[in-house]
Formats: sequence, C-alpha cells, structure tokens
Amino acid sequence: MSVHLGPNQYGKAETRLVRVVRDGDRHDLTDLNVSVALAGDLSGTHLTGDNAAVLPTDTQKNTVYAFAREHGVGEIEAFGLLLARHFVDSQPTIHRAQVRIEQYGWRRLGPHSFERDGREVRTARVRYDGQGAEVVSGLTDLVLLNSTDSEFHGYLKDRYTTLQETSDRILATAVTAQWRHTGDGSDWAESYAESRRILVETFAGTYSYALQQTLFAMGQKVLEARPELAEVRLSMPNKHHFLVDLDPFGLDNPNEVYFAADRPYGLIEGSVVRDGATPAQEDMWHF
Amino acid sequence: MSVHLGPNQYGKAETRLVRVVRDGDRHDLTDLNVSVALAGDLSGTHLTGDNAAVLPTDTQKNTVYAFAREHGVGEIEAFGLLLARHFVDSQPTIHRAQVRIEQYGWRRLGPHSFERDGREVRTARVRYDGQGAEVVSGLTDLVLLNSTDSEFHGYLKDRYTTLQETSDRILATAVTAQWRHTGDGSDWAESYAESRRILVETFAGTYSYALQQTLFAMGQKVLEARPELAEVRLSMPNKHHFLVDLDPFGLDNPNEVYFAADRPYGLIEGSVVRDGATPAQEDMWHF
Amino acid sequence: MSVHLGPNQYGKAETRLVRVVRDGDRHDLTDLNVSVALAGDLSGTHLTGDNAAVLPTDTQKNTVYAFAREHGVGEIEAFGLLLARHFVDSQPTIHRAQVRIEQYGWRRLGPHSFERDGREVRTARVRYDGQGAEVVSGLTDLVLLNSTDSEFHGYLKDRYTTLQETSDRILATAVTAQWRHTGDGSDWAESYAESRRILVETFAGTYSYALQQTLFAMGQKVLEARPELAEVRLSMPNKHHFLVDLDPFGLDNPNEVYFAADRPYGLIEGSVVRDGATPAQEDMWHF
Amino acid sequence: MSVHLGPNQYGKAETRLVRVVRDGDRHDLTDLNVSVALAGDLSGTHLTGDNAAVLPTDTQKNTVYAFAREHGVGEIEAFGLLLARHFVDSQPTIHRAQVRIEQYGWRRLGPHSFERDGREVRTARVRYDGQGAEVVSGLTDLVLLNSTDSEFHGYLKDRYTTLQETSDRILATAVTAQWRHTGDGSDWAESYAESRRILVETFAGTYSYALQQTLFAMGQKVLEARPELAEVRLSMPNKHHFLVDLDPFGLDNPNEVYFAADRPYGLIEGSVVRDGATPAQEDMWHF
Repeated sequence: MSVHLGPNQYGKAETRLVRVVRDGDRHDLTDLNVSVALAGDLSGTHLTGDNAAVLPTDTQKNTVYAFAREHGVGEIEAFGLLLARHFVDSQPTIHRAQVRIEQYGWRRLGPHSFERDGREVRTARVRYDGQGAEVVSGLTDLVLLNSTDSEFHGYLKDRYTTLQETSDRILATAVTAQWRHTGDGSDWAESYAESRRILVETFAGTYSYALQQTLFAMGQKVLEARPELAEVRLSMPNKHHFLVDLDPFGLDNPNEVYFAADRPYGLIEGSVVRDGATPAQEDMWHF
Repeated sequence: MSVHLGPNQYGKAETRLVRVVRDGDRHDLTDLNVSVALAGDLSGTHLTGDNAAVLPTDTQKNTVYAFAREHGVGEIEAFGLLLARHFVDSQPTIHRAQVRIEQYGWRRLGPHSFERDGREVRTARVRYDGQGAEVVSGLTDLVLLNSTDSEFHGYLKDRYTTLQETSDRILATAVTAQWRHTGDGSDWAESYAESRRILVETFAGTYSYALQQTLFAMGQKVLEARPELAEVRLSMPNKHHFLVDLDPFGLDNPNEVYFAADRPYGLIEGSVVRDGATPAQEDMWHF
Repeated sequence: MSVHLGPNQYGKAETRLVRVVRDGDRHDLTDLNVSVALAGDLSGTHLTGDNAAVLPTDTQKNTVYAFAREHGVGEIEAFGLLLARHFVDSQPTIHRAQVRIEQYGWRRLGPHSFERDGREVRTARVRYDGQGAEVVSGLTDLVLLNSTDSEFHGYLKDRYTTLQETSDRILATAVTAQWRHTGDGSDWAESYAESRRILVETFAGTYSYALQQTLFAMGQKVLEARPELAEVRLSMPNKHHFLVDLDPFGLDNPNEVYFAADRPYGLIEGSVVRDGATPAQEDMWHF
Repeated sequence: MSVHLGPNQYGKAETRLVRVVRDGDRHDLTDLNVSVALAGDLSGTHLTGDNAAVLPTDTQKNTVYAFAREHGVGEIEAFGLLLARHFVDSQPTIHRAQVRIEQYGWRRLGPHSFERDGREVRTARVRYDGQGAEVVSGLTDLVLLNSTDSEFHGYLKDRYTTLQETSDRILATAVTAQWRHTGDGSDWAESYAESRRILVETFAGTYSYALQQTLFAMGQKVLEARPELAEVRLSMPNKHHFLVDLDPFGLDNPNEVYFAADRPYGLIEGSVVRDGATPAQEDMWHF
C-alpha cells in the first residue's frame, strides 16, 4: 500500500451539560457545551475496523456528565483539564486529548431564576498529551462598536481601488479571542474577567487608524496586564456600516444614517506574542 | 379564467438601519431591522405585469433611510406608524401597509462606544389601512429558566404515555411575546419596559404546574398592569432539560446534572385577552 | 378577573423520524420532521395548572414513533391525517389537531445507500376538528433563477425612487408554496409531483415583467392542472442580483458579473384561488 | 515593549459573485463565495496604524469582480490561483495570499433557467507565496447514509461505558473533505468529479466496523485513483440515528424506526497521505 494514516482524532462533540448547584433555596447554574477529541494508537480502527483501542464517543459523553456530578464543574479550564487528563491517563491507547468548552452566561433574576444574558460565549481549549497540558482561554461573539474615533486612509491604491478615504467612520466587529496560558494553574476566573475587561476597554479607548491597530492594541494590553499569558490571538471581522447616500432625496447625511451590511466583510486576524514565550504546541489553535 | 387573485402583499424585508445621534462627544445608537409589506390595487402587476400601481421595494428601502434622517427614529412603534401612514397616504394604489421592526440592544461602554447586549430582540408591528392603525409591540428570544418550583403531573395517560410525573424539574423557555395596544398613542418606551419587566418577574415568581399556567399568568399580569393593552400573545417552547441517569456509574443525581436537548421540544402558544377588547384586525399576528 | 384565555394550542414540535423499510437487501428511507399542535378543553391547565385534560407532548412524540411502526408512514399528508384523527378521536378533551410535517429528500446510491439531495423540503399541514379535515401540501426552499427574460419598469416613482428601470435582469427566488386540497383523499404523491413540476416549469417558462406576475402564473397553472386543489399560496423573496459597476476599472459589464445580495430583499406574497372554492378554515395557513 | 506581532493576515471574506455567460439564448451560471486573506509587511498597520502597505479589503472585492469579467472564472482552483498570484505579484508588501472559494451547484432547467441543486458545496483553497502555489480542492455538506452494513463492537469499556455493541446500525455523516494537489496544474474539473465520485461510492460500498474505517477507505481510494493528489483530509460527524424503544407500546422495532439526533454527535477527523508526499505548507488546512 502506498498510502498511510496521517494526523487523526475522534471524539464526542457538543455535549450539552447544565448543572444546578443548590445551596438551600439559592441555586447556581452552569451551562456548557463540551467537545472532546482524542488521538493515539488508532491505526487499527482506521485500517481494519478493529476497535480494541477505541473508547466510544458515547463513553466520553457519559464521562462528561458523571464528572460533573463526581467532581463538580468550577471554571471551564479546570473542568477541561480534569477531563483531558482522565482520558489520557486512564487509557493506554489514548495519547492526547483535546477538550473544548463553551460556556453560556446567565443573569440571576432570583434565588433560582435566570435569564440568558446573550453576550459573548466564554471558551476554553485544553490539550494534554500525558506529560504537559496547554490551556487556551477565550471568548467569541463579543460584538463591539465605536461610532467615531476611527479613520482609514493612506492605504495602497491600485487599478481596482475605489474606496474613499475617511477620517470618521463606524468601527464594528464581533471579537473572537483566544489567549494561551504559560502554565496550567492560572486563576481562571480572574484571568478571564480581566482579559475580557481589557479587550473591551481597549477597543473602546483606542483612537483607530486601522482595525489592525485596534486588534494589536487589544492583545498587547492584555499581555501587559496578565503575566500568566503567553499569547493572544484575535479574529475580528470588520462589520461594515456604510453611510447611506441621501443626496438624491435632497438630504445630507452627517454620519448619522448607516446601512449595516452582512457580506462581504473584512476579516482581520492576528496574534500578539510575549517576547520569549514558548511556542504553542501543534494544533493548539485549531480543533 | 376560473381562478382569481386572493390575499397578497409585497414589500422590502430586512432593511438594516443603524442611526447615530451625536450630542457633542456623546453618541446614541439605534439598530433596527425594518420590513415593509404593502397591499392595495395590485391586480395589474399580478395579472399582466403592469406595474403602474407598484411602488418599488427599492423605494421602500430608500424611504426607511430617508425618514431616519428627516424625522429621526425614536420608539420603533412610532417609526413604524410614520412609515405605514406615509405609504398609504401618499400612494392612492396602496391601501394597507404593515411595518415590522426588530430592534437590537446595545449597552453603553463609553461616550461613543457600545457592546451588543445580546438579550431579547424588541419588536413592533404596525398595520395601517388609511383609517385606523393597529400596533403590536413585543419581544423575541428572551430565554428564561427556573431551576425549581416547576412540577408536571396529573396529565392524561394513554397507551403511548411513558413520561414520569415530576414534582421538581427545570422549566426553561425562549419567550416570543406580542401585545396589542388598544390605540396608537401609548407611551411606547414605558409600555415596553414595563411589559418586559412583568413578563420576566412573573415567569420567575410563578410556582408552576404547567408551562401553560406560567404563560397565562405572564399575559394576565401584563394586561392587569397595562391598561393601554388589549391582548397578549405568547409562544413559549418548552426547552427540555433531562436529568441524566447516572445510576450505571454508581452515582445519584439529585436534580443536579441535566442534558439540555435541542429537538423535539414542547411548544405552548396562547393568548390572554382583556374582556370586551376589540378583536384584532385580520392578519395582525402574522406578517 | 377582567381577562380571559384566548386562542391557544400546544404540542410537540420537530420530532425527527427516520424510517427504514427493508425489502431484502433493498431498503427505502423516509426522513421526516413532525410537529403536532392540539387545542381543546385547556382552560384548566392555563388557569390553575390542572393537567387532567392535557395529553403530554412526550406522549405525542411517542405516538409519532409508534404509528410509524404500526401503520407505516406512506405519503406525509396521509400520515398527518392519521395522527391528527388519532389525537382528536381518542381524547375527548382534544377538539382540534394540527400536524405539520417536513420531508427531506434522499437520492438512492445503492440498495441501502443514500445521499441527501438538498433540494426543496416537501411539507404538509393537516387540520382535523372531529368533523372535517383540511390538508395543505407544499414545499419550501426551492431556489430558482432565470438569468434573463425578466424586466421591471413602468412602476410608481416618488421622491424616494432611485431605482433604474430595466429590460433585462436576473430573477431569483426561494419558493415557499402551499396548496390546499378541496378534500382529504387526493393522490398525494401524484399531486405533489405534478404541482412541483408545474411550479418549476412555469417559473422557467414565464417571461416576467414583475415577480408578482410570475407568482400568479405559477399558482394559476397549478390550479388549472390540478382539480383537487382549491388554492395556492406563494411566498417568494426577490433575491436581488445587482450588476456590478465595472466602469471604474475600464470594463463594461454586459449583464455578466453580479453581486448576490443577502439583505434587504423584496418579499412577494400572494395567493391564487379557484372561483367558488370553500374558504380555508381559520388558522390554516399559519401554525 | 515586551510583546511582538505574531502571525497575522487580513482580507475580504465572502464576496458573493454570480457570473452569467451567454452563448446566444443559452446561458451558463457560476455561483461563488470568494474569500481572500493576505499576509506580508503588515507591522505598520498593526503597530502605528500606518496603512501604506495595506491593499484595502474593498479593493480585493473589486478585484474579484473585475477579474471575473477580464479573465472569466472557469474552475475555482484556477480562479483562486489567478487571484492569489495577482495580489502577491502586484504588491511588494504582500508576501502571501490565500484564496478560499465555495461553489454552489445549479441544475439546468432550460436555456437560461436554473434550480439550486442543494447538494454539497464544492470548495477550493489556494495559497501562493511568490514562489510556489499549493492547491487544496474539496467539498462540504455531502450528507450520506447507509441503512445497514455498519457494525460497532469490540471497543474499550470502562466504568463510564454503557453503549451496547451492535452488528447493524445506520451510518450517516456529512462529509467535509479536502484533497491537496502535488502541483498547481491538475485537470481541476476531472479531478473534482472523480474524487467526489470515489468518496461517495466508497462510502456506499464499504462494509463498516467503524466510521474511522470508512473514512480511511474513502481517502485511500481517492489517492489510489488520483495520482495528482498528495493527501486527503476528512472530517465526518457521526450523525447518530437511535433505534426507538417501542417495547412500552407492545411493539418490536426490527431496525425500522429511528430518532435522528442533533447533539451531541461523534466527530471523526483524519487524513490519508501518499507515501513520500511533500508535507503541506504551514496553515494550509486552516484559514
């Protein structure tokens, strides 16, 4: 045979776990979406359908629920580490586990009543290979907008350039951010809360000449404030808001009435890295 | 010809309008999705393609943007009324206009910086026929959860019934609500804020034996508190949270670990009507 | 109390049923999404949480699966009638049942292998009130495009009109169609196949001066060919394809390069009715 | 400053291009979604907002439309190569371009009439760095199902395993496949048609003991038949179809009635590599 099995992994994706912790009449709620991907000695199942090395994805799902009862959940990075270590350490055929968790926020309405807050989704990705663990925290769908303090000019112009330079535009984006920890023992709750706060405040507080500049500033400020982090990766679509031409109707439009477009959109992706940081393990950023 | 043209309408759907109002350095932001549907003397365009009675949907879109500049936006019910009246009153061939508006919420971060709050979408539907206007306010995607104070038992059982009765379950839903005003001059902002508050508080404060009971209570409380309203219509999926059976793993599960299911789901729909209220005009609830 | 319970219904939505029929090595596949909505003597559950008249939505789901085994599925209109009649006829508290079914198509690859064909979704809605049944067949997401033979001109022009008249444009839409049967005993398979064929052929074969004209012709042709039908209702977004202005690049654009826009879009809705047809029962078109 | 700019790119995503080619009365239709991502000398825009090296994303969009007119589109791999080479070769500050294209299929209804076929989306990704080009073809959303000839047993069992072994189950998946070419001059149309055909036929023709086995066989068969390819990467969710327990209703269920579940789902990802193949360039598989 002239072909061979390349990189591969398998697991149970999107196990929806809601956990209620009761302290008398007062309840706390945790709402997660947990995905597991395992790699290891999996040539048998691929080449001949021999599943002797395969822990079923159904078992992975069961483990998520059982661990929520046995160990609690706590911060999602910690829960991810617990799961990833379990799969690798308990099964000799499994050499690497990745666990990805999304957490949905709820706002308290009463002792046991809640409203989905609908803001960004908090995320964590954990990778464990039997020796070391790598933890990436993050968020997605954080939608931010500055209605001024954004310019865009001085760019390259070629035959296909028609864009007009502007010294005042709306800058809007939906932030997906991931920040990699140097170790596996950060104060996850504080690290998340502060990183999120800094991202938001830096977006709002940066006078911008390019979305790239805003992106870099956001990552830089997080790294400067959070010594536990090695790298921040940001993916920020430029959600275009086009000024509507009201001239045909005898009306001016002093940066007041905009069309919010869907597609196409700019997409700015970049990372900010601490000098001297250990590089990420292979595959860390994608799953 | 043995067939004829039945009910029909046409319009421009989902015009995305963002308006910025500047008070010096401090900006306000309004973010809308506006849909228009017109009806009238439209047999020509249907039967022969004669468009002499048709105001193009492109013109409708332009009107939305131009009106935002000429008249401002204000509360969405008022903006909808302005648009609906314009189309009918300015075009003899247009006899009825419906305008549906969705408003997306933003939380202020700074004088001209905002974050999408991601909670429910506020909605308005306006219908104007040249004589009277009917206004329906509402919201959608308001996700609520009580982690206790919900029972379900005493129901019909037939050959196909396997559901176990319960005296303690999670009750979760995504509320779509619409409330019809008796007139067209309500204090829209206060009416919305109070109706929303009462819906949420009643959901949280009702000890429930059925989602239907919770639904009726929510509508009832709104009508009792808001004399400007004639009717409340609610559509509330029962977002099932199933207790996970941890018994095979030697674990109990005292209402702590749940699987949040996607499909199928219960769907409870009902209306609460003020005694003696004028019935809704035909088509009011659907668009 | 000055309020009362208005129209209401409840049921299990989106029960996903896949049925395999085996004829030796050769299998047939049916893939459905079934939603049930029941109405009747439901004041108890709304007003006091007394569920004595409530057949649980979980039981409705079980019934869908059990009936698929007991009675087979066959055409979705027949399966919907079977379910609707069962709920009303077996439960005195249930006075009306609506069943809505979506059917997903699969293309055969081999005796027991299939590929989702991804074309339109076939739909059926059945309403039964203990006396008569009403059946509406249909489809959704049928995306059609003519690259010429579409004009649009001669329309109303007001202060807000900027649209240029055109004698050659792309006409594209995603058809949602519903056709109401006069009785409950049509040859469902043939009726669907022929109605679908006529809709598609009429869209392709109509030289169009307005999407409304195309819509009416589609409904008219179906009614003329299918005596078992009383009415056809069509909802057809105008999926705009805008000619790109290539002039700034020194290029012409002879109706060759288009931008396919997402929002806003025109939305044309209309019905064609057979002269003398019995009107639809209340609520038939919405669920 | 103790941080630096790490990997980054920017571009215009999801430019929707529809091109009509007219040969008299007979038209051909190409329907694409084009995304561009450029990398290069971009530290200025990130660090100071100096955009002198930035070709605006708006220009990239214009280029897509202009090239469709100037050069035609043809096969998407060729169109991607044309665009990628243009950006790098014409702008000294741009050192690498990635172009990703999705192509939507249409079925001919008449000389200038078409129906979206709704089957899989054809994809291409091209990467060009000024020296060499790498081309990855593929598809996504190809939904396949075998209603038998699938077993799953002999797997690892631990404390959390409850899954029952089976010798007859439904195997269903939505294939995302990517195949990397060794060069940049393949016969793209034939290569796509044949690779797709082999993927489908191998899925249907493989008696499966694990989805991994099916996945590997699919990649292997493609590589064996297509010498122009170096590697096939597959991502295949296990779309679970659970046999419904009809026992409580006094009914058996001989692999006939299934519940098609949404979440969670298994996710199997793997690659098959030709022996001796050149490794993919960094980032090739993710964008």
